[in-house]
Amino acid sequence: MGQIKVKSINSIPLNHQNFERFGDFLTLEDANHFKINGGSTDRFHALSQVDTSTQDGKTIISMFRGQAFNLPFALKVMERHPLGSQTFIPLNPSLGQRYLIVVAPAECVSEEDITNNLSAFIAQGFEGVTYKKGVWHHPLISLDQINDFIVVDRSGPGNNCDEIPISSSVIIDN
Amino acid sequence: MGQIKVKSINSIPLNHQNFERFGDFLTLEDANHFKINGGSTDRFHALSQVDTSTQDGKTIISMFRGQAFNLPFALKVMERHPLGSQTFIPLNPSLGQRYLIVVAPAECVSEEDITNNLSAFIAQGFEGVTYKKGVWHHPLISLDQINDFIVVDRSGPGNNCDEIPISSSVIIDN
Repeated sequence: MGQIKVKSINSIPLNHQNFERFGDFLTLEDANHFKINGGSTDRFHALSQVDTSTQDGKTIISMFRGQAFNLPFALKVMERHPLGSQTFIPLNPSLGQRYLIVVAPAECVSEEDITNNLSAFIAQGFEGVTYKKGVWHHPLISLDQINDFIVVDRSGPGNNCDEIPISSSVIIDN
Repeated sequence: MGQIKVKSINSIPLNHQNFERFGDFLTLEDANHFKINGGSTDRFHALSQVDTSTQDGKTIISMFRGQAFNLPFALKVMERHPLGSQTFIPLNPSLGQRYLIVVAPAECVSEEDITNNLSAFIAQGFEGVTYKKGVWHHPLISLDQINDFIVVDRSGPGNNCDEIPISSSVIIDN
C-alpha cells in the first residue's frame, strides 16, 4: 500500500515584513495619518497601491461575500491575476471576523513548486491585503462566518486569471 | 438693516438616477452579482469605476475617519478633484450609520454658481459614492457619530484639489 502524503502548514504572523514579497498589508497600526478637511477628518494615507493599468486595464470596486470555512482547511486550488493587483478589505471590521490567506510567490510555475513555497496568514478585523500582480493565492476563505469584503481589482482585455488545482493533500491550520 | 439671506436645502433620495451626473452610486440593491470561486463567493461586480490615470496618476486606497456632525448642517466649503475620481465606502455598514453628501455639477465656476446648483443626499449603511473627476462636493460629513470610510482616489503629480469657501449662509437638512 502506498502512503498518503499530507503536508501541514501553520499560519505565520501577518505583518509588513512577512507579507512584503506578496503585496501590501493594509493596517491602521503604524499607518501614515494626518488631519484634512480643516481638522475634521483623519486620513490614513495610501494604505495600499493599486496596479491595474497593464494592457489598458481599469480599476473597479466590487464587493465579495464569502461563505464560511473552518480550520483546518484543505487547499483546493491556487490562482493568480497576471495583469493586475487585487485588494481585499473586510467590511464590518468592528465584528472582528477572521479570514485565511494562503499565498505562493509569483515565480512558481507548477503545483509542486507552489505547494513547496506556501505561506499562510490569518487576518482579523480591519486587516486587508493586496496581492501583487501574478502572486499565487487561494480564492477567498472567510473563517467561522460569512464575511463581506471590498475588492479593488482590474477590469479590461486579456486573460487575467490563471488557476492550478491542488491535487495533493495540503492542510492549513492556525 | 440688511436682511440675512439664508438658503435652505433638503436632501433628495440617493439613487442611481439622482446621482448619475455626479458619479457612481454604490449599492448592493440591484447590483450585478454572480458566483465565483467554485460557488463559495458572491461577487457584486464593478459597483464603481475608478478614474485616476490623468497626468500619470495612480490609484491608492486610504481610510478616512470623519468626526461627527449634526443636521441641520451649515455649508462651509466646497472642493473638487480635477484630476481624478474619489470613492467613499462606509466601513462597518452593519452599524447603519448615516453621512451627508452635498454636491454641485463640475461645470460650476463660482460660489454663486455652486450654491445655486446644490444637491444633497443622505447615505446609510453600505451606500457609497464615487465623485466624478471635477464634481464639486463638501468634504466628508459623517452624521451623528464618528464614521470610517474606505477611500479610493488618485495619487500623482499636479494640483488635484480646488476649494471654494462658502461665505453665504446655506443650511442643509433632512
